[in-house]
Amino acid sequence: MKYRRSGRLVDMTQYLLQHPHQQIPLTFFSERYQAAKSSISEDISIIKELFETKELGIIETAAGAAGGVIFVPTVGSGDALTQVRDLCLELEDPGRILPGGYLYMMDIVGDPAKMQELGRMFASHYRDQNVTAIMTMATKGIPLAYAVAMHLNVPVSIVRHDQRITEGSIVSINYVSGSSKRIQTMSLARRSLKPQSNVLIVDDFMKAGGTIRGMIDLAAEFDSTVAGVAVLTEAVHEETKLVDTYTSLTKLSHVDVQSRKITVEPGNMFSK
Amino acid sequence: MKYRRSGRLVDMTQYLLQHPHQQIPLTFFSERYQAAKSSISEDISIIKELFETKELGIIETAAGAAGGVIFVPTVGSGDALTQVRDLCLELEDPGRILPGGYLYMMDIVGDPAKMQELGRMFASHYRDQNVTAIMTMATKGIPLAYAVAMHLNVPVSIVRHDQRITEGSIVSINYVSGSSKRIQTMSLARRSLKPQSNVLIVDDFMKAGGTIRGMIDLAAEFDSTVAGVAVLTEAVHEETKLVDTYTSLTKLSHVDVQSRKITVEPGNMFSK
Repeated sequence: MKYRRSGRLVDMTQYLLQHPHQQIPLTFFSERYQAAKSSISEDISIIKELFETKELGIIETAAGAAGGVIFVPTVGSGDALTQVRDLCLELEDPGRILPGGYLYMMDIVGDPAKMQELGRMFASHYRDQNVTAIMTMATKGIPLAYAVAMHLNVPVSIVRHDQRITEGSIVSINYVSGSSKRIQTMSLARRSLKPQSNVLIVDDFMKAGGTIRGMIDLAAEFDSTVAGVAVLTEAVHEETKLVDTYTSLTKLSHVDVQSRKITVEPGNMFSK
Repeated sequence: MKYRRSGRLVDMTQYLLQHPHQQIPLTFFSERYQAAKSSISEDISIIKELFETKELGIIETAAGAAGGVIFVPTVGSGDALTQVRDLCLELEDPGRILPGGYLYMMDIVGDPAKMQELGRMFASHYRDQNVTAIMTMATKGIPLAYAVAMHLNVPVSIVRHDQRITEGSIVSINYVSGSSKRIQTMSLARRSLKPQSNVLIVDDFMKAGGTIRGMIDLAAEFDSTVAGVAVLTEAVHEETKLVDTYTSLTKLSHVDVQSRKITVEPGNMFSK
């Protein structure tokens, strides 16, 4: 089937968006549309220009005889900050305060479109870090983890607290929760993370960082390195954090249960 | 900023893809591109034609003075069956057999791009059912649930086995696991599902259907109706299924641990 330029642009746009971080040879498109490579190159430069203007992503041209393009999703830093500021206002709603000083966040985490937007920010931030896998902790870290993973085109490993995992042999480690100082266990199926991975750890909430410290240690058990740590919300914590380097989208700087006042500000992703 | 048609087509395509099941007034686009509504209408018809040809989705035109478009993601039934047949072959790998007759599926569930594709199939299947929320069971149902939810533009409620949920008051019910006949408990935070929702239940695996039966009962506790039940894999089960109506993508028809042979076929989504 033959396509006009307008049809090619629509289809190529949707194809690139659905295949981030994948090298696509120009011949793939020229066969798909029965068009000359020169026409395809022109199409690509139209898409590239629009994506750059709108800060939607970078279209990299891969060198070599095959010749190909790679779509790398990005988020404009202005757009990201605007969205995160809105999120901070949402989080400051006093109705979120739960017994024990916890915050109700399931409406945020339960919103797939919001998770996509926020996940894309982390995917943009870590786009050059050669991330090959995402690791997260069940349950509430999973939605954000998948959103980041989708935009980076890498698999997800889900770590769990319980050991009733029907996935063959598992690797478990004990760790000390930074807040409660209790010894806890986390487990990951042996088959669910390839050795020599470069792992981006993603979670919804970080207090002292005990859980994330545990995931860093767990990655080492799989002979893997840690590319970074990405958290949706960090709580300001009186004591030393157990994790040095991390990127947060939002920072819960104050929760006063008595006066029902919550203060949330953009996280350290925006601090430089 | 002014846009030429080519730029508008690229941007409009990405915008529609990221806002499924949402009515977008034509004035939104004409302001975004500083273009006449008649030009926008022509752009829309180009996109509409390509999406229909490629079976990527339907662009509905909303009536009324405002005038607007709604992008409804679909999957061509031929494409869906091809993808599901590939998935069946992957699942038939004898290396997946685990002690107890379980199948290792975390590589499938851990692949965000695959979850997106499969989730889109369910979103396409249930697109006219007026689904207003997705309900799933932690942990392995979550990735597919979010993929469906993203394409239907609805929130996700995550049901859990444990009651250590720091999300305010929870609603718990006891249910009988269809396979083990044991009494178990499942819980959902009161705030995480709006009353009068029309729920699509999504899960990764269904044996006798006890867990899903429990989720149906739980939906009733929230004064909500069940629009449907969508499962990635159903196991053929000797005894009566506890759920009458459901849609499966794949069907595990035979697991022989002795001879290490697994038989998987396309599920009932493809049987009529």
